[in-house]
Amino acid sequence: MPRFRTYCPSLAAEGETFQLDAFESRHLVTTNRARSGDEAIAFDGKGMECACRIVEADNRNSRLKKLTCARLVRKGTKITLAQAVTKGKTMDSIVRRATELGAFRIQPLISRRIQVRLKNLPRKLDKWKQQCIEACKQSGNGWLPHLSAPVPLERFLANLDFDLTLLASLRERPTPWQNLDPGPATCALIIGPEGDFSTEEYELLHNSGAVGVSLGDHILRSETAAVSALALATQFLDYQTKSPPA
Amino acid sequence: MPRFRTYCPSLAAEGETFQLDAFESRHLVTTNRARSGDEAIAFDGKGMECACRIVEADNRNSRLKKLTCARLVRKGTKITLAQAVTKGKTMDSIVRRATELGAFRIQPLISRRIQVRLKNLPRKLDKWKQQCIEACKQSGNGWLPHLSAPVPLERFLANLDFDLTLLASLRERPTPWQNLDPGPATCALIIGPEGDFSTEEYELLHNSGAVGVSLGDHILRSETAAVSALALATQFLDYQTKSPPA
Repeated sequence: MPRFRTYCPSLAAEGETFQLDAFESRHLVTTNRARSGDEAIAFDGKGMECACRIVEADNRNSRLKKLTCARLVRKGTKITLAQAVTKGKTMDSIVRRATELGAFRIQPLISRRIQVRLKNLPRKLDKWKQQCIEACKQSGNGWLPHLSAPVPLERFLANLDFDLTLLASLRERPTPWQNLDPGPATCALIIGPEGDFSTEEYELLHNSGAVGVSLGDHILRSETAAVSALALATQFLDYQTKSPPA
Repeated sequence: MPRFRTYCPSLAAEGETFQLDAFESRHLVTTNRARSGDEAIAFDGKGMECACRIVEADNRNSRLKKLTCARLVRKGTKITLAQAVTKGKTMDSIVRRATELGAFRIQPLISRRIQVRLKNLPRKLDKWKQQCIEACKQSGNGWLPHLSAPVPLERFLANLDFDLTLLASLRERPTPWQNLDPGPATCALIIGPEGDFSTEEYELLHNSGAVGVSLGDHILRSETAAVSALALATQFLDYQTKSPPA
């Protein structure tokens, strides 16, 4: 498999030979040291991937030629990580890890105890998107997560539209993971802020029908919680149904 | 519950009133701003925890008075995270997250493709131990993981002494998590380096009887892999056996 992966959102509409934008060109040529003649995989983040030949390795205008193209089929539960916004680098890291783990959507939540000011939101969303792209390149994930603008918890809960909504919590008596019905088409996974949700917020969560699940007996940092919850949800909701008996 | 947690390895041998070392005193008083009269939980990392009153909050010689003490009972599978050493901060972070998730032991592995030079090992081990202590304080975990000095993969495999040895891998046809026999007393969880194990190393792993498990379809960074694997092993090996039916 080619060592290089590069992002081209317009891949499906491009002809046989196409040009990468300046950012991707630089990443491919300067950071990853790809050269003309090397093979690379171009992906559009929407499930299309093409094995390509690098026709011209240029750190502003690289050109690639499609060799073979494939459309990936998305399998399993579409999981939305609904994550209370954390401080700068931690949120960047959560976005990356969620992408590695194949989250379908990332929905940042504004809750009472988030310790972050959401100024310059377009720039933040742009930065998070860049984290998603990087993680797609490194992990081989062909699907860029949908990245939604932060919304207040109340508004998120008022518009819940998932087959299953899970809440990682130390407070409630959790439902064992293996008791969840496997195979929902969509699932939201709600992760609180470092200072946890407030009592009023817990009441809202309760009333919205969110199902409490456990991530163990300790108080986890947001990043540990998000990764654990995504790994567990993926295995218990998806793979559980598909695996053959021993 | 008191907001403050402080580490005192000699807790069990101390009398009713005891003194914290300079490091813990400073952390309690300067970093966490605890004051005389406040309550704090002291723990020894070996399962003993005492609710205490801070008699003297001093940033070098704080003194605490035991109010009530308890011995925790360790439940579930003792999981050893056998982690190929990663670069500086990533390894620190893995050690912290493994502590949050209740790993019994952390065994750094030296494999062919680790991109790290293990110079000044005592200092490194000291730093990792400090990460464990910090994570115990923040997460409420009363058990400090055993922290072993790095060993070559070969030597680790030659002395395997676990009821179950799991290998997180994209290479092999994985055994589904739910097909693992739950409830082993001990389990090792082997996580490779960023560049993966070599073919020869995979052969060694195979011959040692390590069972391949999946963390999904993508190539995960070491930290994502370690957290995912620990969360999954804990849930599938431990909790699965204990949960009542729906």
